[in-house]
Amino acid sequence: MKPEDISVALGSDHAGTALKATLAEALRAAGHPVLDLGTHGAESVDYPDFANAVAAAVLDGRGRFGLLVCGTGIGISIAANRHPGIRCALVHDVTGARLSREHNDANVLALGARLTGPEVALDALRAFLATPFGGERHARRIRKLTPDWSPRP
Amino acid sequence: MKPEDISVALGSDHAGTALKATLAEALRAAGHPVLDLGTHGAESVDYPDFANAVAAAVLDGRGRFGLLVCGTGIGISIAANRHPGIRCALVHDVTGARLSREHNDANVLALGARLTGPEVALDALRAFLATPFGGERHARRIRKLTPDWSPRP
Repeated sequence: MKPEDISVALGSDHAGTALKATLAEALRAAGHPVLDLGTHGAESVDYPDFANAVAAAVLDGRGRFGLLVCGTGIGISIAANRHPGIRCALVHDVTGARLSREHNDANVLALGARLTGPEVALDALRAFLATPFGGERHARRIRKLTPDWSPRP
Repeated sequence: MKPEDISVALGSDHAGTALKATLAEALRAAGHPVLDLGTHGAESVDYPDFANAVAAAVLDGRGRFGLLVCGTGIGISIAANRHPGIRCALVHDVTGARLSREHNDANVLALGARLTGPEVALDALRAFLATPFGGERHARRIRKLTPDWSPRP
């Protein structure tokens, strides 16, 4: 698939806005459609609200993938994973990002802006978008996370 | 609280049994009651089953905390976080473990045996158990994860 066919919905709390902006710029430069659902300022907000907004965008197809950032990635990934159709992978490097696509067919990537630096985050995001799902041997486990899951291109 | 008052329910898939055994031994040596819910052998199993078993143990009080291990920690933490009463933090180091208790009142710790080495995992577990919840300023966000949440000792 071409980058213009792989849209990404972005969300963060106030701790994640700078990293989100860096990643959004890189995504746009690579040709991906970007849907930035906020937050945009420094005002204190609640990470679950932005997790829910990105989850909704992925579930209704506005974003093929989601990207979430908070201070640690922990709270925002817990919130995203309350949605049975979302498989949100909190990763800290390229390896976790790659394996989350291969093994879990993750559809949302979460990063912690206070734990993972911008170059590591950017490499992880690229690996996430470049790695295909590993195939049927993982399907039974994924259906225990998302009962109506089916593979997609 | 004394270690004997802080019980830990453990679960892993086949990729996590060796790290789970190391952590269980350390917990027992420190005086924590340990409830090991498996898996115990090398046979291939499905990580969601063990996430669900540990989630049930934490929710019904058999474990004050839960500890989950799979290859990356990603799949098993997604499964645990399908339960609204569970706040499962996938961490890679002491810092994430500490912040997950302070900010998210995490009640389950997830680790990836293929990504995080045993000494780092052990330090993260110790930090997780030693760190109290940071208090009321985080409560509004936690109630968006777990609507009936209330602080506990």
